[in-house]
Amino acid sequence: MSETYELIYWPGIPGRGEFVRLVFEEAGVPYEDVGRGKGGLKIVQRYVSEAGPVFGPPILKVGELLLSQTTNICLFLGRRFGLVPPGEHGWAQANGLMLTIADVVNETHDTHHPTSVTLYYEDQKAEALRRAPHYLARLPRFLAHFAFVLEQSGGPHLFGANVTYVDLALFHLLSGVEYAFPRGFAKAVEGHPSLLALRDRVAVRPRIAAYLASERRLDFNQHDLFRRYPELDDPAARAT
Amino acid sequence: MSETYELIYWPGIPGRGEFVRLVFEEAGVPYEDVGRGKGGLKIVQRYVSEAGPVFGPPILKVGELLLSQTTNICLFLGRRFGLVPPGEHGWAQANGLMLTIADVVNETHDTHHPTSVTLYYEDQKAEALRRAPHYLARLPRFLAHFAFVLEQSGGPHLFGANVTYVDLALFHLLSGVEYAFPRGFAKAVEGHPSLLALRDRVAVRPRIAAYLASERRLDFNQHDLFRRYPELDDPAARAT
Repeated sequence: MSETYELIYWPGIPGRGEFVRLVFEEAGVPYEDVGRGKGGLKIVQRYVSEAGPVFGPPILKVGELLLSQTTNICLFLGRRFGLVPPGEHGWAQANGLMLTIADVVNETHDTHHPTSVTLYYEDQKAEALRRAPHYLARLPRFLAHFAFVLEQSGGPHLFGANVTYVDLALFHLLSGVEYAFPRGFAKAVEGHPSLLALRDRVAVRPRIAAYLASERRLDFNQHDLFRRYPELDDPAARAT
Repeated sequence: MSETYELIYWPGIPGRGEFVRLVFEEAGVPYEDVGRGKGGLKIVQRYVSEAGPVFGPPILKVGELLLSQTTNICLFLGRRFGLVPPGEHGWAQANGLMLTIADVVNETHDTHHPTSVTLYYEDQKAEALRRAPHYLARLPRFLAHFAFVLEQSGGPHLFGANVTYVDLALFHLLSGVEYAFPRGFAKAVEGHPSLLALRDRVAVRPRIAAYLASERRLDFNQHDLFRRYPELDDPAARAT
């Protein structure tokens, strides 16, 4: 009996759900993107509106099993689909790096929502203008860490010869940060051509390339984690 | 050959290292708290000052293996020490809940550091006063989720009969939030006596009780994740 995989996530944005979608796409495993189906938004809202076994999207439903938290879902699927590094310690090293990628996702998000997720950007813009330069100052250290791991492994992937779910996540993170902070990203990634090469290598993998060209792939947009507000990326706005 | 466990973490604060310490203590497994030993601060600083295989503390060193990220280290040790729920899906359900606990830790921390970890509280106090009420407004939803999981399991622990590393983490989170926001916590936990009972149940476990009474246990303090700034907890300061 084959199990059905359901991804429960907000429609309209790549969001944190994108990290999960990329794992399914690379593995070539069918999944239902529930939020984007008929009545999907209501299903997602139900998980958020009342206390339950998972706190919020993205949620993975496999039979009776419900899992939450992006990095957790990706680790679970990565182990199932053979997208983790080999060996007894492989999954833990992958998960550690994935969590640092998730930290950068959160820090990028918080540049435009430093006060509350329940307020509009415009209502926390003063705080955002103050916070963004600190984010941009931290970004190079994160990228240097990712480059170190990649180079230490001997490449071409973060954990050596074979692609893992963490490569897919780093691909999306780098794409998202470049979308949101084209200027800050260009500066932070200087000296790390290996990271850009990894990103390009992921993008041309046959299943990923097919996915990126499909209707299933959503564009970055101004409701997402990664948003382009030029005033946050521009040094002229950086006076604190 | 028995392996030696080293925890690499800042001295002087419980911090995120505390979630790791509690796992060792409950398991009765010896570990070296490197940061608190002679020259320990320099060792910790070395991991932060240059790009390497892990991004920052807490770091677990077991032989040649280096792992980072609090929830990752706790999952790794929890699996080794039999402190995860049983079954094929147990570790993933534990990890999902642990990550939500870690989200609350981060949100609590960010109440006093909403702009940057590199600024003093006093230099981001205006932003902190604005952010804290949003945190306090979200807190009840997190606690309702934890209570749901606990009650659904049949108790007395989050995943049923046996204690897991997630119970230890929730014990520390609830203690920390109560320390930082005595007023907000009292209000948020109303209606959830099961959570307070769980916390008390963890505190009297023989190895945990011995640890809490020992010199190894550090008190909460104003350099930690959980800080008591009465103005953030007081409704009089909540005008946004």
